[in-house]
Amino acid sequence: MSVYLGLIEQLDLKLIRAIDMHTHADHVTALGDLRDATDCATLRGEFTRAECVSQHVREGETVAVDGVWLKALYTPGHTNESFGFMLDGRGECEDAVFTSDVLLIRGSGRTDFQGGDPYASYDSIVNKLFTLREETRAYPAHDYKGCTVSTIWEERRFNPRLAGKSAEQYAEIMRSLNLPDPKMIGVAVPANLACGQRA
Amino acid sequence: MSVYLGLIEQLDLKLIRAIDMHTHADHVTALGDLRDATDCATLRGEFTRAECVSQHVREGETVAVDGVWLKALYTPGHTNESFGFMLDGRGECEDAVFTSDVLLIRGSGRTDFQGGDPYASYDSIVNKLFTLREETRAYPAHDYKGCTVSTIWEERRFNPRLAGKSAEQYAEIMRSLNLPDPKMIGVAVPANLACGQRA
Repeated sequence: MSVYLGLIEQLDLKLIRAIDMHTHADHVTALGDLRDATDCATLRGEFTRAECVSQHVREGETVAVDGVWLKALYTPGHTNESFGFMLDGRGECEDAVFTSDVLLIRGSGRTDFQGGDPYASYDSIVNKLFTLREETRAYPAHDYKGCTVSTIWEERRFNPRLAGKSAEQYAEIMRSLNLPDPKMIGVAVPANLACGQRA
Repeated sequence: MSVYLGLIEQLDLKLIRAIDMHTHADHVTALGDLRDATDCATLRGEFTRAECVSQHVREGETVAVDGVWLKALYTPGHTNESFGFMLDGRGECEDAVFTSDVLLIRGSGRTDFQGGDPYASYDSIVNKLFTLREETRAYPAHDYKGCTVSTIWEERRFNPRLAGKSAEQYAEIMRSLNLPDPKMIGVAVPANLACGQRA
């Protein structure tokens, strides 16, 4: 939160909108605190259960601020209410897609709670994200090896969970992960439904 | 090392040259292993004491590979043999500078061993790196908060060790850091003088 506010002040920006792409289970969002500090709008996808949202977006809808265009992509799988956002450079900068936790670099987000579903994840990735132009840069919300960006071309070819895999094979991979629950899930999910401000 | 080789293979690249920008004190370089695996040239600045170097570069020299131009900048201070490299986009992509450990994001590399000197660091940063075009992206070799890139404009204005500070004030800040020696320094420095392969 202080990192965001510090950069907003230093770069002399005005925060107009902030987006939570899904309800996080492993950390508490700063969305409510950012709204209180900056009076920004709070955006979520249309299927969120969060109560503190000032603008809902739906599949295909474009959100524009000052020459930046973000197109909402409904990408369930990690959760049943996850949205990705496509940055449309309109020829002035490169296109990019923010994939949230659905598609990660050489990986994908777990599919075993909060309405997660491996078949929905496969469909979101293969039939939606992988149909974007191959040179589109893909920014995930997490990476555990220090990477920050990949491309659709790279992930189509080298994502070991997806390259050459059928939906059934992907579902089997995801089912066999046997991950423990995030430590904070009991606190984070209810808090994040209130934009991080009360559990 | 396996991360680099994995990407080289996946992206169908041929590694022509690899550069160590200074002799690291906190980790062991993969330069020798990369050379053995790929037959790449090993580059270092002209003042290195490392013995396994196939090409030395000096201040102002440009190294070119396949439409990528890197200009060597002698930037002592963190060590007395550190070089930075300026990526010259020639109008086809944005210019960038790789600052090694001399200039970090809102910080700078320590100046208390391996010929480090706070006045040399100040001179390298203020009189060399900060004279680059303000929109130049600056990529440091480390960041401890997850950032990967800044700009010369941002660091001139917001680097707390440098913005508005004289050389004397900067030297006092650096002297007062009182950092412990890196745990690996006794192993890493001799190993890195041999491109990481023997201590």
